[in-house]
Amino acid sequence: MAVMSSPPETTSYAADLDAVRAAAERIAPYAHRTPVLTSGAIDRVAGRRLWFKCENFQKIGAFKFRGATNCVLSLTDDEARRGVVTHSSGNHAQALALAARHRGITAHIVMPTTSPEVKCAAVREYGGVIHPCPPTLADRERVADVVLAETGGCFVHPYNDPRIIAGQGTCVLELLDEVPDLDAIIAPIGGGGLMSGTCIAARGVRPGIRLFAAEPAGADDAARSLAAGRLIPQTGPDTIADGLLTSLGDLTWPIVRDHVERVITVADDEIVAAMRLIMQRMKIVVEPSGAVSLAAALALAEPGVERLGVIVSGGNVDLDRLPW
Amino acid sequence: MAVMSSPPETTSYAADLDAVRAAAERIAPYAHRTPVLTSGAIDRVAGRRLWFKCENFQKIGAFKFRGATNCVLSLTDDEARRGVVTHSSGNHAQALALAARHRGITAHIVMPTTSPEVKCAAVREYGGVIHPCPPTLADRERVADVVLAETGGCFVHPYNDPRIIAGQGTCVLELLDEVPDLDAIIAPIGGGGLMSGTCIAARGVRPGIRLFAAEPAGADDAARSLAAGRLIPQTGPDTIADGLLTSLGDLTWPIVRDHVERVITVADDEIVAAMRLIMQRMKIVVEPSGAVSLAAALALAEPGVERLGVIVSGGNVDLDRLPW
Repeated sequence: MAVMSSPPETTSYAADLDAVRAAAERIAPYAHRTPVLTSGAIDRVAGRRLWFKCENFQKIGAFKFRGATNCVLSLTDDEARRGVVTHSSGNHAQALALAARHRGITAHIVMPTTSPEVKCAAVREYGGVIHPCPPTLADRERVADVVLAETGGCFVHPYNDPRIIAGQGTCVLELLDEVPDLDAIIAPIGGGGLMSGTCIAARGVRPGIRLFAAEPAGADDAARSLAAGRLIPQTGPDTIADGLLTSLGDLTWPIVRDHVERVITVADDEIVAAMRLIMQRMKIVVEPSGAVSLAAALALAEPGVERLGVIVSGGNVDLDRLPW
Repeated sequence: MAVMSSPPETTSYAADLDAVRAAAERIAPYAHRTPVLTSGAIDRVAGRRLWFKCENFQKIGAFKFRGATNCVLSLTDDEARRGVVTHSSGNHAQALALAARHRGITAHIVMPTTSPEVKCAAVREYGGVIHPCPPTLADRERVADVVLAETGGCFVHPYNDPRIIAGQGTCVLELLDEVPDLDAIIAPIGGGGLMSGTCIAARGVRPGIRLFAAEPAGADDAARSLAAGRLIPQTGPDTIADGLLTSLGDLTWPIVRDHVERVITVADDEIVAAMRLIMQRMKIVVEPSGAVSLAAALALAEPGVERLGVIVSGGNVDLDRLPW
C-alpha cells in the first residue's frame, strides 16, 4: 500500500486536472459520453453499491478512443499533416485509426503478422494503414522506426504520453459528474494510462476519493511495483485479460505510485466469472480486460467503500471464443 | 398488407392510448425507462437510421415486466390478496413473479418439468412459487386451473389481456417521447402483446406513423393471418426465437390486423446474424427473439422509411449456448 505522508506535487506529473479538462473539451465532439449503469443483482453479490462507467459503449468499443483522440487533436497542423504512427494489435490501434480519420490524417499502424484478421479488418475499416511486422516487440519497434523515418509522422504511444493520460482521465471526470459522491473508484491497470488519468482526474475534483487498481494475477507488475516502491517491468505475462499485458511507463508509474491505495490482483477464473456476471445481469458485452475491475471489486474487502465506481474499460471480445 | 380504407375505431380495441398512459404512470416507480441506443455501423449496414429501444435492459431482462406490472398494480386489493397465477416458462413467468413481489403478493407460476433449471431459479429468485406440470399445453392449463381453484388467485395471461397490452405499449410511448420524428417502428410479434400495445401507443401519439411486425419464418402465424384476413393459430413452430412461438389472441389480433402495414418474416440464420451484429457492434446482449426486429429491419425494403424505431425486446439468452 502506498502511504502518503504529504500531498504529492501534482505539477510534477505528466498531466494535471487542467489537462484532463482541456482533453474533455477537445474530444467532446467525437467521443461518446458513455452511460453509467447499475445492477441491483450485482450490488447484492458485491455487498456494496457499484456504478459502472461503461466504456464498452465508447467509440471503437473501448476507452482508448479518448486518449488517442486527445492526442491527435493536440497536434499542430504541421505535425498532423505527416500522420500518426503506432505499433499495436489491440484497441489502441483501432482508436488511433479512427481518431486520425476524424482529423483527416493518416494513421500508420504497425501490426504483427500474427494479428487476428478481425483486428486488422477493424483498423482498415477505420481507415488505418497497416504495416505488417514479425511478432516480436523488437520487430514492432524496428518497423515503426522505419515508418516514422519514411513518413515523418508523430509516434503515439498507447499509454506513456501526457496527452494519452489526460485523455483517459476524461472518463472518470464524466463518472464523477454523474455520481459525485463515490467513496472510491476502481479501474483496470495495464500500462497505466487509464489508471493514471483516473487518478489525476478523480483526485483533482474529489481530493479525498480512494483509488484502487484492478490487475490480473498473471500480469501483476503494478502490484509488485507498488509493493517494491519502484517500477518493476512485466515479463512473461499470462492472463486472459489481453489488454493488460504491458508494463507501467515512466510517466504513468509516478502517478500510480502516489495515488493508488492498493492494487487488487485477480485470477483468470475470477475475471471470467465477472465477465459472465456482467453479461448475464447487465446485458452488456465486456472483454476480459473490461471485467477485471468488477472481479477486483468483488474481491475488495476494504471497510468504508460503500459507493464504488467501477470502470468497464472495453467490450471488444471474440464472440466465437467466450471463455466459458 | 392490411389496407385501411377508413380509420379504425380505436374504442373497439382492448386498450386505447389513455390506458397506455395510465399504465405508464402506474409502472413508472418500478420499471426502468430503458435507453434508446444507436449505432453508426449498423445504420450503414441497414441503409437507414435506426433507434434501438433496449428492453433487454428492462427489469428481468425483457419488456414483459411492463405488462405484468401494469396488470398486478391494476388489481383491487381484494383481487390482489389472493395472488396471481400464470403458466409460462419464459420471460412472462419472471416478470409476473417480480411484479407480484413489488406488490407484496404471491405469484403462482405453472412451469413444465422440462423447464431449464436456470429459468426456475430466476422465478424463485423473484419470489415466485413454482407449480411443476407435464410439458404439454393441456397439462399446463389443467394445473393452472387447479391452482386457480385452490388459491382464488387472478389469472394473468402473457399477452391476451387489456392490462398487458396497455403495459407493453408504454415502451413505445417512451421511444416516441425521446425520438418523436420516426417514420416507422418495427417490433417482434409472437402472441401480439408487444405489437398491439405498440400499435395503440404509436398511432395514438403519431397517427401517421408506419408500423411493421417482425416474425420468425418458423412461427409465421401473424404473416399468414394478415394475408388471410383472419386469425390463423400457430401450429408446430420451429424457430430459435423461443419467445415468439405463440399464436395471436382474440384481443391482440384485431389491433394487429388494423394497424400493422406488413409482417416481415425472417429465417433463423438472419436472426442469428442480427443477434451477433447487435452484440458485436452495440455491445449489448440480446436474445434471439430480441434480435428478430433488427433482422427484419435489415430485410425491410420499404421506400420512405428513413428513420426507423427498432424494439429490442429482451436479453435473456443462455450464454453457454450462443447459436453460432
